[in-house]
Amino acid sequence: MDRMLNGINLSLLTDFYELTMANGFLHHGLKDKITYFDLFYRKVPDGGGFAIAAGLEQAVEYLQDLHFAPEDIEYMRSKKMFSDEFIDYLRDFRFTCDVWAVPEGTPVFPGEPLVVVRGPAPQAQLIETMLLATINHQSLIATKANRIARSAKGRVVMEFGARRAHSYAGALYGSRAAYIGGCPVTSNALADRMFGIPAVGTMAHSWVQMFETEYEAFKAYAEAYPTNCTLLLDTYDVLGSGLPNAIRVFDEILKPQGIRPAGVRIDSGDVTYLSRSIRTALDAAGYTDCKIVVSNSLDEYIIRDLVNQGAAIDTFGVGERLITSRSEPVFGGVYKLCAVEEANGEIRPRIKLSENVAKITTPHFKKLWRFYDKNGMATADVLSLYNETISEDEPFELFHPEFTWKKKILTDFTVRELLQPIFVGGKLVYKLPSLQEVRAYAEDCIAHLWDEVKRFENPHEYYVDLTRPLWEIKREMLSKRGKL
Amino acid sequence: MDRMLNGINLSLLTDFYELTMANGFLHHGLKDKITYFDLFYRKVPDGGGFAIAAGLEQAVEYLQDLHFAPEDIEYMRSKKMFSDEFIDYLRDFRFTCDVWAVPEGTPVFPGEPLVVVRGPAPQAQLIETMLLATINHQSLIATKANRIARSAKGRVVMEFGARRAHSYAGALYGSRAAYIGGCPVTSNALADRMFGIPAVGTMAHSWVQMFETEYEAFKAYAEAYPTNCTLLLDTYDVLGSGLPNAIRVFDEILKPQGIRPAGVRIDSGDVTYLSRSIRTALDAAGYTDCKIVVSNSLDEYIIRDLVNQGAAIDTFGVGERLITSRSEPVFGGVYKLCAVEEANGEIRPRIKLSENVAKITTPHFKKLWRFYDKNGMATADVLSLYNETISEDEPFELFHPEFTWKKKILTDFTVRELLQPIFVGGKLVYKLPSLQEVRAYAEDCIAHLWDEVKRFENPHEYYVDLTRPLWEIKREMLSKRGKL
Repeated sequence: MDRMLNGINLSLLTDFYELTMANGFLHHGLKDKITYFDLFYRKVPDGGGFAIAAGLEQAVEYLQDLHFAPEDIEYMRSKKMFSDEFIDYLRDFRFTCDVWAVPEGTPVFPGEPLVVVRGPAPQAQLIETMLLATINHQSLIATKANRIARSAKGRVVMEFGARRAHSYAGALYGSRAAYIGGCPVTSNALADRMFGIPAVGTMAHSWVQMFETEYEAFKAYAEAYPTNCTLLLDTYDVLGSGLPNAIRVFDEILKPQGIRPAGVRIDSGDVTYLSRSIRTALDAAGYTDCKIVVSNSLDEYIIRDLVNQGAAIDTFGVGERLITSRSEPVFGGVYKLCAVEEANGEIRPRIKLSENVAKITTPHFKKLWRFYDKNGMATADVLSLYNETISEDEPFELFHPEFTWKKKILTDFTVRELLQPIFVGGKLVYKLPSLQEVRAYAEDCIAHLWDEVKRFENPHEYYVDLTRPLWEIKREMLSKRGKL
Repeated sequence: MDRMLNGINLSLLTDFYELTMANGFLHHGLKDKITYFDLFYRKVPDGGGFAIAAGLEQAVEYLQDLHFAPEDIEYMRSKKMFSDEFIDYLRDFRFTCDVWAVPEGTPVFPGEPLVVVRGPAPQAQLIETMLLATINHQSLIATKANRIARSAKGRVVMEFGARRAHSYAGALYGSRAAYIGGCPVTSNALADRMFGIPAVGTMAHSWVQMFETEYEAFKAYAEAYPTNCTLLLDTYDVLGSGLPNAIRVFDEILKPQGIRPAGVRIDSGDVTYLSRSIRTALDAAGYTDCKIVVSNSLDEYIIRDLVNQGAAIDTFGVGERLITSRSEPVFGGVYKLCAVEEANGEIRPRIKLSENVAKITTPHFKKLWRFYDKNGMATADVLSLYNETISEDEPFELFHPEFTWKKKILTDFTVRELLQPIFVGGKLVYKLPSLQEVRAYAEDCIAHLWDEVKRFENPHEYYVDLTRPLWEIKREMLSKRGKL
């Protein structure tokens, strides 16, 4: 269990309307009314082809820790708008919902439930804000990290963003999400201690400035860390002083000990030009294995350009544009009621309409299926009703939910359900994988997506279709409301 | 003391290189070497004319709580690269630095120190990452909130972003910063409980969907909250069903009790057109005092347009574009060594050069002065050496640090020092103001900035000049390095 989430009771980290609604549900005898909510997103950040679901482990920790402490109860009472019945309900709060979710690291597409909650209306409502904040944040950063990692074409991308993160938790969980997305190393020591993400780092400009000369600073570093000696070249002048001083120190301090230098780093300037000049000089000095690390406002577009221009860079350190997902810092996950259950167990679908067609929801308690072709490549996802099954032994007809004349018969496919049971009756039934397992799973899933889906710009729009029974229900509900 | 910061020991939330450097300082006998660091930023987000400093209170809490717990020590030992001397140093860590800072809520300009740290090299280095993460995050959101609040021209802007924040701490401290910047209300119940920022909220679409009809949902809400009845109109069709149902419920449920409705809210669609139609209908029904609340991907530009187009909106709820500062989610604060102290007390300036001229620092231990004209309007800021004073009794010559022929003689001015002592020898000497005081102070400061500085686009560039003695030192250091 994550100790940080225990540091304060986060149960009140919720939008106030969750509390007014929950209180209202009790007022109207809906305390035990069973509801179904979907957590899904509408648009892939940065115009990409897919997102990576992340944050489930922290969501689980939050749900396991849900309780209202005396100071929370005191606060609720002070608002003078909540019933005694509701305040007692919070004091004795016990989480009893069922929760399904796609495993962390799963590539997910717009409109697909990442989390499904079934449970009493007040409970399912109260958890909306924190579920969203947790899943939105980590899915955002995992998705961005994956874009950046892929742009580096096999070179290592290190997560270096703590100082520009949105608070310490933005830094810590951002490191975690970046690891899931494909950054195997962080600068954040706490992320190493808590999550086992290897933390690295050598020197800032202040180290160089601390000594009378750059040469003395480099020499001092090499003496303190002979086997881990990466020198920062751009405090004064990369090619004019940083590089020659570094080579001199490698020659004078490391070479006599038979130790190879680890690397050099540059943090400013034209890094394509500089990295090539540095490579040439290092090679000429016999340091062909000395790595060149670059870190200066990088993102997937700049790294792609650097790689295409033949920059001699071995490792990228990516900071603010990763840890804030600067080009799109919002992952627009929402949490919408999709069904309610009658006392007799009948599940009745609910829909949300909107002037904005994109904001119309897909009703009902659903399953999410992923189809793979005979080579194991993911070809389409399908949403079905909760009580449908899809057999690999029969052809399956895909059709576009809007342009229904677009059809495709799938044969020779395999299919798997993506939503896994996480809580049953409020009890955790899911074995949380290790972060290393999550990362390996994500990598494997992404390897089974077509390159067309992975383009940074104008990716192929992956199919997310509805089964015919689900589509009929949605069509009928829209039709009744005059939207079709 | 903020309990959340106590939940985990954040002392390891630091870039790994702070640890390697600190260990290196001990290795080279620099454990007690006195250093001076400036925390400053280089560019106002969104092309604005000023930023608002925020986050000092959380930075203070972090510094007061600095210690390395047994699990931190264990972690450090496991890295096998730190000396026993350093590990002992961390185990017995005691913060002894002097810290100065501008008060929270102060408008600040590029290049100005928001925080100055003087202290032993390893300590001053270790705190870099968390100081930056804390001040960067809250300054970013306070600055954005102020832009959005100003765009609303006196209408209330509510902070509604928790679900899209970068984790719970992004949400909680984002609410705090938004309050400093000018959003007097939040949706975040925990921000209310912890910081006293009034939290509000009524219903989501799920409330409306929970009932068989929209009318029943509205009726149920009005029965539960007659004196706080704001109804959400856009679950199905704003003008076709939401609005008439709301008026019917106001008439049937509230009017007989002599209670006025609080408001109606819309969250989608063309809100200028919709708000006017709603206003007309509400007025015709006798509900001229019923407020119209709008919340749909708003920011300062959209609100400015809505206000200019005469939208009939009383209150704005602003979510993702505020809590992430979506258009610029990075506040680029940095932390740079500006001087070191010799054993005899002599302070020796340090500079960082760069290929990027904008990355060159202003050396030395400094004071920051703000000049006001005889009407109390802020006219210029000046950086001086630590041992200079500026007298209001003598004319003061401003000159541009780059284009030195640009000069201006100030007379009849008042001047105040902005940097306040926060810690002396590691002991807190500053009385942290209440959040309400911070907000009032920010409002007052901003009222004393010229409108030209407050433009959203192409604002007047506020003067941040150097005194002649400081400028001479910087010029000489640059000149020695061949940059001038």
